Amino acid sequence: MSTHPFDLAVALQPAGDDLWRGHTSPAYANMVGPFGGVSAAQALSAVLRHPARLGDPVALTVNFASALADGPFDVVARPARTNRSTQHWVLDVRQDGQTVLTGTAFTALRRETWGRDEHAMPVVPPASEVAPATGPRRVEWVNRYEMRFIEGGIPDQWDGREQGASITRLWLRDAPPRPLDFASLAALSDVFFPRIWRRRALLVPIGTVSLTVYFHADAAGLARAGTGHLLGQAQAQAFRSGYFDQTAQLWSEAGELLATTHQVVYYKE
Amino acid sequence: MSTHPFDLAVALQPAGDDLWRGHTSPAYANMVGPFGGVSAAQALSAVLRHPARLGDPVALTVNFASALADGPFDVVARPARTNRSTQHWVLDVRQDGQTVLTGTAFTALRRETWGRDEHAMPVVPPASEVAPATGPRRVEWVNRYEMRFIEGGIPDQWDGREQGASITRLWLRDAPPRPLDFASLAALSDVFFPRIWRRRALLVPIGTVSLTVYFHADAAGLARAGTGHLLGQAQAQAFRSGYFDQTAQLWSEAGELLATTHQVVYYKE
Repeated sequence: MSTHPFDLAVALQPAGDDLWRGHTSPAYANMVGPFGGVSAAQALSAVLRHPARLGDPVALTVNFASALADGPFDVVARPARTNRSTQHWVLDVRQDGQTVLTGTAFTALRRETWGRDEHAMPVVPPASEVAPATGPRRVEWVNRYEMRFIEGGIPDQWDGREQGASITRLWLRDAPPRPLDFASLAALSDVFFPRIWRRRALLVPIGTVSLTVYFHADAAGLARAGTGHLLGQAQAQAFRSGYFDQTAQLWSEAGELLATTHQVVYYKE
Repeated sequence: MSTHPFDLAVALQPAGDDLWRGHTSPAYANMVGPFGGVSAAQALSAVLRHPARLGDPVALTVNFASALADGPFDVVARPARTNRSTQHWVLDVRQDGQTVLTGTAFTALRRETWGRDEHAMPVVPPASEVAPATGPRRVEWVNRYEMRFIEGGIPDQWDGREQGASITRLWLRDAPPRPLDFASLAALSDVFFPRIWRRRALLVPIGTVSLTVYFHADAAGLARAGTGHLLGQAQAQAFRSGYFDQTAQLWSEAGELLATTHQVVYYKE
């Protein structure tokens, strides 16, 4: 059995019909509660372990209803509708009888069809030529990811000097490297630091409230990506009245668009 | 009481705790079952009518589990978690005891903060200078929307000549005009014709499986938009193994980004 911290974090024990039990991971601790990407991966992990699962993940949405407390949690993953080659899932993560995360997932048997990547990977230097991020790390989970910022890194100075755009491009992967799978791709979708910090160069309080991941890669595409770096790109479209959105892409080193992902984030001030 | 077809379509009758009853609308009929945008709006409509609702919609995700049959349906809209100024909803639309739509919504009390529209409205001619779409309409719901295509209209010829990009820009609004609200903005998020038809100039069978809407506008922003046209822009990022995504924006005539919206769509061949 793998002892990679990500595998330990998304491990779940069966606890009944459609029910699993997990435990928050100190390795992925955030400022308050765990890193949301791992919470999303834990919820998806219940779908992936379900004996009635049909096909692979195509869409996942999770909503962060409350910060998880350190400790055990229950995941309910219920197939709400099973069609011939598709399946719709309802997700509910609970602690002490209260919902802390709601969500839905969609899995499907995928077939070969005509296909194109319309959003081409931007031209960037290879990962080996981009320095890994160093410096102070405010939260533990950041140590679980290798990040090599190409453009739009974490501001050096929190001087409130507004930037014209919030775009960030970076090479990223699990640290230590781990073969990509659906759960880790879901978590990687949430690795981008908050767009408002980038745009404003101000450390305002934030919290993701809803995260959606569309998986373009199937199992073979994940295997091709392997333990290589992914190119991540993220940008906000609007900041308004306490909430902003983020839209992001994750490509394999070979330029295959593996996932597109969106989130909406609370901010203060 | 309004007799606008959209108001009639999203009308719901209370039928118990967290439970409403609605009816599919022939005015919004699609090829098979109703237009998905109206199904999304009907689900959101239950949240909007709920006596325990806190705040306005910020995020909505609906998953189309099965085509609705013409006739009545039940909507369950349950507040799964209520915080001080935010609320998480679980949605379930049922016909004959079977789930036909799953979903989640997030509502919040919004406050004035620093804000920016980062994705600026593209420079386009005003709606009055763009001709409304005419020609054959395969499905009834299309008659409920005014569409003025600026770029990337429905192909004239279904000759399978592949296009380099799937982008479409159009002015759109309800027909007849109707003051914008959260439900109609949700429906308008799904008006774009399938990106694969645009990219391939081929009428392949398609069906949206998951739709997410982020509402950047609050009630005051909707009131400012009023009955004016919205500028819509939509583009795919990847087409792969039977599914493609679409990412889209809706601006008011005055250039305010009202909503950003994403979906993943099944396609055959």
